[in-house]
Amino acid sequence: MTSSLLGTSIIGYSRGSGSDVCGRGIHQAAGAPLEPDYVSATTEEMNRAVELAAAAFPEYSALPGKVRAGFLRAIAAEIEGVAEDLASRGPLETGLPEARLRGETGRTTGQLRLFASLLEEGSWVDARIEHAQPDRAPVPKPDVRSMLRPLGPVAVFCASNFPLAFSVAGGDTASALAAGCPVVVIAHASHPGLAEIVGAAVMRAALATGMPEGVFSLLYGGGRSIGMSVVQHPVIQAVGFTGSRAGGTALMAAAANREQPIPVYAEMSSVNPVVILPGALARGEVALAEAFFGSLTLGVGQFCTNPGLVFLPEGTGAEFLGKLKSLVEAGSPGTMLNGSICRAFADEVEAFASTEGVETIARCATPAGPGQGAPAVFSVSLRRFLEADLLQGEMFGPAALIVRGSIVEIEAAIPELEGQLTATVHGTEAELAAHASLVAALQQRAGRLIFNAFPTGVEVCHSMVHGGPFPATSDGRSTSVGSMAIHRFVRPVAWQGFPDSCLPAELQEGNPLGIRRMVDGVNA
Amino acid sequence: MTSSLLGTSIIGYSRGSGSDVCGRGIHQAAGAPLEPDYVSATTEEMNRAVELAAAAFPEYSALPGKVRAGFLRAIAAEIEGVAEDLASRGPLETGLPEARLRGETGRTTGQLRLFASLLEEGSWVDARIEHAQPDRAPVPKPDVRSMLRPLGPVAVFCASNFPLAFSVAGGDTASALAAGCPVVVIAHASHPGLAEIVGAAVMRAALATGMPEGVFSLLYGGGRSIGMSVVQHPVIQAVGFTGSRAGGTALMAAAANREQPIPVYAEMSSVNPVVILPGALARGEVALAEAFFGSLTLGVGQFCTNPGLVFLPEGTGAEFLGKLKSLVEAGSPGTMLNGSICRAFADEVEAFASTEGVETIARCATPAGPGQGAPAVFSVSLRRFLEADLLQGEMFGPAALIVRGSIVEIEAAIPELEGQLTATVHGTEAELAAHASLVAALQQRAGRLIFNAFPTGVEVCHSMVHGGPFPATSDGRSTSVGSMAIHRFVRPVAWQGFPDSCLPAELQEGNPLGIRRMVDGVNA
Repeated sequence: MTSSLLGTSIIGYSRGSGSDVCGRGIHQAAGAPLEPDYVSATTEEMNRAVELAAAAFPEYSALPGKVRAGFLRAIAAEIEGVAEDLASRGPLETGLPEARLRGETGRTTGQLRLFASLLEEGSWVDARIEHAQPDRAPVPKPDVRSMLRPLGPVAVFCASNFPLAFSVAGGDTASALAAGCPVVVIAHASHPGLAEIVGAAVMRAALATGMPEGVFSLLYGGGRSIGMSVVQHPVIQAVGFTGSRAGGTALMAAAANREQPIPVYAEMSSVNPVVILPGALARGEVALAEAFFGSLTLGVGQFCTNPGLVFLPEGTGAEFLGKLKSLVEAGSPGTMLNGSICRAFADEVEAFASTEGVETIARCATPAGPGQGAPAVFSVSLRRFLEADLLQGEMFGPAALIVRGSIVEIEAAIPELEGQLTATVHGTEAELAAHASLVAALQQRAGRLIFNAFPTGVEVCHSMVHGGPFPATSDGRSTSVGSMAIHRFVRPVAWQGFPDSCLPAELQEGNPLGIRRMVDGVNA
Repeated sequence: MTSSLLGTSIIGYSRGSGSDVCGRGIHQAAGAPLEPDYVSATTEEMNRAVELAAAAFPEYSALPGKVRAGFLRAIAAEIEGVAEDLASRGPLETGLPEARLRGETGRTTGQLRLFASLLEEGSWVDARIEHAQPDRAPVPKPDVRSMLRPLGPVAVFCASNFPLAFSVAGGDTASALAAGCPVVVIAHASHPGLAEIVGAAVMRAALATGMPEGVFSLLYGGGRSIGMSVVQHPVIQAVGFTGSRAGGTALMAAAANREQPIPVYAEMSSVNPVVILPGALARGEVALAEAFFGSLTLGVGQFCTNPGLVFLPEGTGAEFLGKLKSLVEAGSPGTMLNGSICRAFADEVEAFASTEGVETIARCATPAGPGQGAPAVFSVSLRRFLEADLLQGEMFGPAALIVRGSIVEIEAAIPELEGQLTATVHGTEAELAAHASLVAALQQRAGRLIFNAFPTGVEVCHSMVHGGPFPATSDGRSTSVGSMAIHRFVRPVAWQGFPDSCLPAELQEGNPLGIRRMVDGVNA
């Protein structure tokens, strides 16, 4: 399979050339580079990818939803056709186990098909019709009809921690293509081979379904320069990103400083607070510790929804902490996604450990080998937590901070937290009801509230919200997981006084697509 | 009535004090100041207004939609109770005729009641339910439910050109209050008396319906300092603004540079291109000129949707232009909203008139008196139009530029236009169909497409889109008119695994509110 990897960008229906090697995939467990060399897209290639996307937009955005759905289904089928390639290359490049890669392949094709089914059903466009009232006094009412339309070409950055489900053909790409937006993907340096395998699959699907050239391109490049150039290109109309806070805020600044500012959907950092109430401990401290440890160490802790911050009422939970200590000490270091994440995690853990007032509950007894991250749990008083800004930061890996205070203090501290993807409460139903104001405070800080479970494992469905107030994301009005993600790449457009024959099918009087619409204020 | 004006800010349920006079209303036609002096809110008052809004948010946002609807209806009733005061003070401060002020009062109360009815019906929250599948392999599916929830306290800036419908209790305030967001309004210096009359009405309505103090405040202040301080205050979560491009982009920059960036909905500038195809001329050039002149001069041309740019195929429309010339020459200067708008309009007209290649079609024969703006129409070749950036700018008043070129050239020029609120085509149905690519290009540049009518007169309804790509607005994904405006002030929140009793009513299993919901992917 490796012999079929070319190491070049995909520019519409052509492959890139150039000679500026930007890197290779790394066999993370062995620390050894993998074939082939990857070559940066040239400036001309970047411009051509973006201009092809702009040229493809009028045709692609005008395609019936069912035709775009066919393209998404073809991508899913092409990805399934290379599932073995992904399962063999993936574990090398990412350090993730093969089972995870296979699972993520299924999640990726599942997302593509979820959006395909949304397009096939068709009601997502929020079609609204208000009929004319020519005799209305003092002025006649015009016929006005509206629906959601795509923004234009979108730049998508691959994520290191979801090399398939949030990379080349992941959630951002699927939702943007579904909306009717051509996509220019910027590959992540830590899994170039997976990117190429998936990118070639998308290109084959586009060709097979007759999509206009430029509906998809994939660019390799060193550092951030290629990506930043794409974001600054005038034809790009939105950006999807999953990664670090530094990377996300740099894209936000670049997008805001364009001559035409554009929206950036950056999913950045979250420590996903968990509040444990006494009733949850009463149900069984050992089981709770086991469940928490499982969530904390899943995927070597490299999920945006990793539960990195736990509020535990002071004077409770001795057995929970004891069990957690033994689990952490007996735990295993795991290979992390890439060297820079591994080094950053080690630094973050040491910074927490050496902060005044922070106590080490437990650290993994087995030392981390090269490229590995090892579990660790710390604790701190609530008062000290609120004083030390550093402790609100993320340890991106299998480490958590346990904050001790009274329940009253915990509730008072919630508004001091930064924006989060998730917030979790463990307790009884009666406690949840009794602490309604605590839950309301958590709601104001997060996109998803969880009761008696842990935040890892983000269900891909119509009701999922994987977003939250800054800095969890750049734009808390959106979700990057689930079918609502399509709303990031559209805007409403109204047609006034148009003859039926010149309206989009979604807005024609006879409702030829049979979609749900609001007609004269009534949901029909 | 004037004797009841206090000239002070409204801080929750108190009135402001302070002694720093920031100005008076001006009798625009006479150029004479009106009683009373208006006093700037102090920094302490500004902080108190914002902190009261934050304190009110948990209670206000948790009220049932029907209770918030009652508040909106009470505001509408209180405004109707002061309709005579508005009709007597308004024409003085704004230069607008009494009939316009009475019409705008009706539009304002109509908007409030439209949002009230939206809340009473309840389905706007986009409730989504996915039921748990505990037996699903390989992992169980959790119960996940989502709906839209308010962002938090919102800052609203009053508009000079809609002293009621986009000011203290206008569309931004109505949609934010409907969403569940407390509002801090910053008064516009050019109609302080109207602002106080309406602000006092809102305060009475809030008291009468038992709203938490801080759900509404109204601040006076000199220059931009008070407004900028509100936008920069950490508790403010969104901004609504209608005004100049300079003002809007300054707010965008301030919001982007906060520690937590927040969304700004600024409706700024638009020249609202109109394309006239030969079939429209064939139907009657004189009638077309009359309709265009009526739209151009409505409200002394001070509408965001004023048709300031007309593409007329070269070699056509002699009779249209002749009639337009006679209408403009015989037209009347009108009193403008305030002195600075009047001076800016005069400067913009002179800048157009003195641009190389611009020909004066007609100017009003009656010279503009103090504070007045007079109709003017210019023309230019399409080639020259594309060369001179200034000509894409707005003349905010009753003036337009007619651009002459072939239809092919006109279509090619559309993508060069900046983002617009509206784009209009006049022609036959056959022409509209034949020029589908021209219409598609206009769609990409505007929020509302109009056929055979003019863009002034923005219908307040469920399907209206009064928004458009930058710089027409700061965020083309939104509308400031119509019921979709509520979506600017909300974000989706998901509840996972929550017991029914702790869910919002909208998401409870039995659907106690009887709203439309999506259940397991099916619109029910």
